[in-house]
Amino acid sequence: MGIVVVGSVALDSVKTPFDSEEEILGGSATFFSVAASYFTQVSIVAVVGDDFPEQHIAFFHRKGIDTSGLHRRPGKTFRWKGEYGYDLNVAKTLETQLNVFAEFVPRIRPEHRKSPLVFLGNIDPDLQRSVLEQMDRPRWVVCDTMNYWIERTRPSLLRTLSMVDILIINDAEVRQLAEEPNLFRAAQKVRTLGPEILVVKRGEYGALMFDGAVLFGIPAFPIEKVVDPTGAGDSFAGGFCGYLAARETADDAALRRAVAYGSVMASFNVSAFGPKRLGDLTYTEIQDRFREFRRYTYFDDLE
Amino acid sequence: MGIVVVGSVALDSVKTPFDSEEEILGGSATFFSVAASYFTQVSIVAVVGDDFPEQHIAFFHRKGIDTSGLHRRPGKTFRWKGEYGYDLNVAKTLETQLNVFAEFVPRIRPEHRKSPLVFLGNIDPDLQRSVLEQMDRPRWVVCDTMNYWIERTRPSLLRTLSMVDILIINDAEVRQLAEEPNLFRAAQKVRTLGPEILVVKRGEYGALMFDGAVLFGIPAFPIEKVVDPTGAGDSFAGGFCGYLAARETADDAALRRAVAYGSVMASFNVSAFGPKRLGDLTYTEIQDRFREFRRYTYFDDLE
Repeated sequence: MGIVVVGSVALDSVKTPFDSEEEILGGSATFFSVAASYFTQVSIVAVVGDDFPEQHIAFFHRKGIDTSGLHRRPGKTFRWKGEYGYDLNVAKTLETQLNVFAEFVPRIRPEHRKSPLVFLGNIDPDLQRSVLEQMDRPRWVVCDTMNYWIERTRPSLLRTLSMVDILIINDAEVRQLAEEPNLFRAAQKVRTLGPEILVVKRGEYGALMFDGAVLFGIPAFPIEKVVDPTGAGDSFAGGFCGYLAARETADDAALRRAVAYGSVMASFNVSAFGPKRLGDLTYTEIQDRFREFRRYTYFDDLE
Repeated sequence: MGIVVVGSVALDSVKTPFDSEEEILGGSATFFSVAASYFTQVSIVAVVGDDFPEQHIAFFHRKGIDTSGLHRRPGKTFRWKGEYGYDLNVAKTLETQLNVFAEFVPRIRPEHRKSPLVFLGNIDPDLQRSVLEQMDRPRWVVCDTMNYWIERTRPSLLRTLSMVDILIINDAEVRQLAEEPNLFRAAQKVRTLGPEILVVKRGEYGALMFDGAVLFGIPAFPIEKVVDPTGAGDSFAGGFCGYLAARETADDAALRRAVAYGSVMASFNVSAFGPKRLGDLTYTEIQDRFREFRRYTYFDDLE
């Protein structure tokens, strides 16, 4: 049932021009699973060290997230240290300590193999494929990746992409993956590599979805005060996949709503450090913002 | 009846990384009036030199644009030379020759004074006010400006803004005018200077409208191949004002549609040099793209 997410659980230290926090809960699987937890059952497959605070495990449990696939290994938890300038779009990585994550080999527990949706977070494409090989025909294979894998492991990444239904990456990654500067041509080229649906994250400028002849685009939900953009893309993917996994069917209307829910979850996430705001939402707050977002972008048809 | 637009009519030389054209029809009043001409009657108030080609006057007439306020003066027409890099968002001005435009004093003919909408193109705010003083209580005063006037003639610009209903400028200009880096706070501050409605042009990232408690935002219409972005902002304003001037009432739904029509006209304009594409449209093509734009951004309400 629900979603299996494979990715990182980390301790982040984040600095913005206005504030900073040290060793807070982070990682792609964290933001993804907290965002998705409002819509469906989520199981995290990840690894942490023996220094990982119990309070974070308790937090996952409070969100109803299954941590039976979150392994604790001797050693230190993955740490990321990053900084943002006044333009909060791009993080500057100051330090990455892989620690126990360097030896991460994802194992899918028997009870998770029949999950209808698997989200392959931004990890080595060899590992992404090893996850797929353990799954029992999921309805949706959704995938993320980044410049690092596009540059260094392209052949392996292409093998993974041939098994993917939905790819969720940012616009620079689309261009780099397709080796094509025009975003629209690049998107169509990426779709020939496997993913039927391509969702393009554009940060403060919103999101695009390419699905056959359908092109859907929305701006970002307007946020007056962005506190920490870390995890925005992962919360977007979590909202998108959570909404999708909770449904029987996924027609065009559902996919468009899924993109809107992704944007909504990302907009909550950036208004506090770590998954603090993302973690204390009510489902009503999410629905209210979805409606507000719809009013924000809505215009009537021709009279 | 319809719209009076005061601004520049120019001869542009434009270079992009892919192509270039010399001495083509340009100027803010040109792009504005051609875009608006599909919706309502437009009268241009501007000045050209005795070198201005008759074919351009004939083009205005073919579009049904009234040129009785387009004065021909001894001397050369205003010339602008600009270049775009691969990021087609920002023009680099290589040369500006004001020529006869330097002595421009807009005179509004008696038959135009009762027009319901006046568009004050991006000229000296003293001249913008002199136009308003000649008008007979227009329903809508719509205004553009730029960094040059914000920096050099702020007191005069503030006097003009106190008489404006709708201000249409880009996001950098909003921030500069309000002296406030946060766009949302800046927008609210600009609205206290006079304009009840603020429309923010964001180039390839779309447009925003602030109207009291209402905030409306749309992405740009996706264009595969941008040939020449010159005049995109003016065609946007032309589509916006044209739609508005053609209507009896202007409720929230109409203002949202006006923003969408502005985006549609800008999207046509950028797909050729000068007003070439903008000038050869049919009303059906405009309506089709409006509908396509709506499908592009539309998502259903909660189920």
